[in-house]
Amino acid sequence: MAAAAARITAVDTYDIRFPTSRELDGSDAMNPDPDYSAAYLVLRTDAEDALEGHGFSFTIGRGNDVQVAAINALRPHVIGRPVAELCADPASLYRVLVGDSQLRWLGPEKGVMHMAIGAVVNAVWDLAAKRAGKPLWRLLADATPEWLVSQVDFRYLTDALTPDQAIELLQRGRSGLAEREARLLHQGYPGYTTSPGWLGYSDEKLTRLAHQALAEGFTQIKLKVGADLADDIRRCRAARNAVGPDIRLAIDANQRWNVAEAITWTKALAEFDPYWIEEPTSPDDVLGHAAIRTGVAPIKVATGEHVQNRIVFKQLLQAGSIDVLQLDAARVGGVNENLAILLLAARFGVPVCPHAGGVGLCELVQHLSMFDYLALSGSTEDRVIEYVDHLHEHFLDPVTIERGHYRAPRAPGFSAQMLPESIARFSYPDGDFWAADLARTEGTRP
Amino acid sequence: MAAAAARITAVDTYDIRFPTSRELDGSDAMNPDPDYSAAYLVLRTDAEDALEGHGFSFTIGRGNDVQVAAINALRPHVIGRPVAELCADPASLYRVLVGDSQLRWLGPEKGVMHMAIGAVVNAVWDLAAKRAGKPLWRLLADATPEWLVSQVDFRYLTDALTPDQAIELLQRGRSGLAEREARLLHQGYPGYTTSPGWLGYSDEKLTRLAHQALAEGFTQIKLKVGADLADDIRRCRAARNAVGPDIRLAIDANQRWNVAEAITWTKALAEFDPYWIEEPTSPDDVLGHAAIRTGVAPIKVATGEHVQNRIVFKQLLQAGSIDVLQLDAARVGGVNENLAILLLAARFGVPVCPHAGGVGLCELVQHLSMFDYLALSGSTEDRVIEYVDHLHEHFLDPVTIERGHYRAPRAPGFSAQMLPESIARFSYPDGDFWAADLARTEGTRP
Repeated sequence: MAAAAARITAVDTYDIRFPTSRELDGSDAMNPDPDYSAAYLVLRTDAEDALEGHGFSFTIGRGNDVQVAAINALRPHVIGRPVAELCADPASLYRVLVGDSQLRWLGPEKGVMHMAIGAVVNAVWDLAAKRAGKPLWRLLADATPEWLVSQVDFRYLTDALTPDQAIELLQRGRSGLAEREARLLHQGYPGYTTSPGWLGYSDEKLTRLAHQALAEGFTQIKLKVGADLADDIRRCRAARNAVGPDIRLAIDANQRWNVAEAITWTKALAEFDPYWIEEPTSPDDVLGHAAIRTGVAPIKVATGEHVQNRIVFKQLLQAGSIDVLQLDAARVGGVNENLAILLLAARFGVPVCPHAGGVGLCELVQHLSMFDYLALSGSTEDRVIEYVDHLHEHFLDPVTIERGHYRAPRAPGFSAQMLPESIARFSYPDGDFWAADLARTEGTRP
Repeated sequence: MAAAAARITAVDTYDIRFPTSRELDGSDAMNPDPDYSAAYLVLRTDAEDALEGHGFSFTIGRGNDVQVAAINALRPHVIGRPVAELCADPASLYRVLVGDSQLRWLGPEKGVMHMAIGAVVNAVWDLAAKRAGKPLWRLLADATPEWLVSQVDFRYLTDALTPDQAIELLQRGRSGLAEREARLLHQGYPGYTTSPGWLGYSDEKLTRLAHQALAEGFTQIKLKVGADLADDIRRCRAARNAVGPDIRLAIDANQRWNVAEAITWTKALAEFDPYWIEEPTSPDDVLGHAAIRTGVAPIKVATGEHVQNRIVFKQLLQAGSIDVLQLDAARVGGVNENLAILLLAARFGVPVCPHAGGVGLCELVQHLSMFDYLALSGSTEDRVIEYVDHLHEHFLDPVTIERGHYRAPRAPGFSAQMLPESIARFSYPDGDFWAADLARTEGTRP
């Protein structure tokens, strides 16, 4: 009786920032000094199980407060919702959040407001998976094609993908699921590592970390490029020398170039046999990516971490702009929109290699890739999840990497939950770390 | 001496909301109940002239506080800047705001953060024009092509428009400027009106307002469509009957449709000879607009009020997606980015018919269209500025319409300044209006 009536009672938000800029972890051609941060929320209920839903937007420091304000603006749509109904149909909330007739002016479906929607929606999925007693990847893999399709917003998609086509893809995708699940639980899902390749690292550190990546069993590493061509040639040479000819070497320009420049620069690095060039130009430039892809072939083109929504992904696929689709768990409108994006990728036969790193992004995306493998694409060929070894220690159920593979998480939920002591210590500006830091520097940081 | 050293001393922000939803002014197929609002800012200086720069983001109610938070996040980049240098080169600030290595994660160049940048940048242009003693349109028309091009960010544009090409367009555009200025001052710039066509209005009110538009000298009106086809047929018939065959009748779906639906629905209204179909689908769908344009020709396709930045406009032009480009003064990164958009439109030979209405959008865009006429496109053929007769009474220098034309504003600045009593009365939630309203409704609105 009490359980049946359980409702969402609170959406508590936190501005959490980690001082990563001091180590140059995460430095690239456009982001020289990120402080990896999370605009974090906890859904609380009055259910007897006391389960919570955790979710967050990832940011890189300044503006994390704006992102928290955006999550707060969604609160009235969430408070009071019956928990069982919400968890049985997260799309019911997704549609309300995306459709808010006043808030949608601030997007629509892009930027700060859309990332906030993603954080709230992901928290609902975390709660739903906990209530089901399953890790999210299994909740999704166990679901029927019809229910999964009911979770997708097909508005603006039907010229590329209809609900009927989506159901067919999912029906076909289930064939052999049990065998793949056994393989997943045994081997894990392949990862690749960006840890050696940040721009701020010395060649010596790059080489050392590349060797280490090999020793750890990774078969692909990634280097940041795009700030200085001579540096890039030197660093790519060092990396290729370190890993030998058989390891895939991806390069990532973080949106640094115009179209022509992207082609010239990438070709100047062709001798080091880069596997893909990532974010060669603006994430908004569908036609630009198509031109670059033609210009740099057979080097592959990858993008996605800043692609704002399913509508832009649809066009990247329609225009033949990308070889590799890099979805991000916290950029778009949560699991619901990422289901749409996985279905689009499957429809066009483009492999998904998620963006990760940051704070908690590895924890989230592993669930989406594992679902994709089990019940949609059915393959890990040419598919890898990015891995960066930052900040996992702050999570209750951190990712586990063995021999270059993500182990399938076993704990119920979306692996989104941060440790209470981490939240307390790195809350900005009042947590222990920042209060001490700001006192020391008289408020000049960050 | 004091003047030479003058600096920006404050960026004061205000959350201003007007209760427009109660009259159904501004209702359309996606926005049934907007409360037209402004996330408003005032740049203050320690200069002896005591001039201020005013700017704002337009929103439609909820989330206006998030927009204010985003403007506040930019404050550290503005405070302390030397006023003379800033006004001589607004692009110097534009580049810093767009390039902030942490804040750009929240876009980049889209949504809440980008609209905030636009508000701040527009406030700088307001201040610059006031200091020059000129309305903004004249400041721009008086400027050299080289200086104007220095104000444009060509990143991600050079596959469609280079700085040299832009200078050539502006050099050619100046020919005959003096004659056109005389004509502008005498006749004004043509407008069209959306006042008859809101979805929430009865057919009787629609007909009455359409007759009134004719009597006021407008040669184009616009109707909202997209909620119900039978209603749209009835309303379009009423409007066409009211205005006769020679007045242009534009229709506006406010992003309501998928691609196929947009084509079918628009063709179903073809018998009423619509001049353009506006926002037939997602503003992000460059390829979708191209398909729709092919499908509904000879009816024209128009979009822009929700187009997030110059990169998407570039592609809409490259793909042949639009016949009419509807820039918005407060959606993108301010005057600097709108200069880029005007140049792109000129390069592709597509007429610009700005989006306006809302709060203060008419006041702003008139300056951009008048500059375009005087010094770039050189023509008003097939060019009209949207006009809606809402909320002008709150501005110090409101637009003036005569015989369906915008009169050229004479007061120095960007016409962006709201009356202090309006700011005080409609500040949310503490202004007189809202305090009384919230007390009456026990905090349930809006």
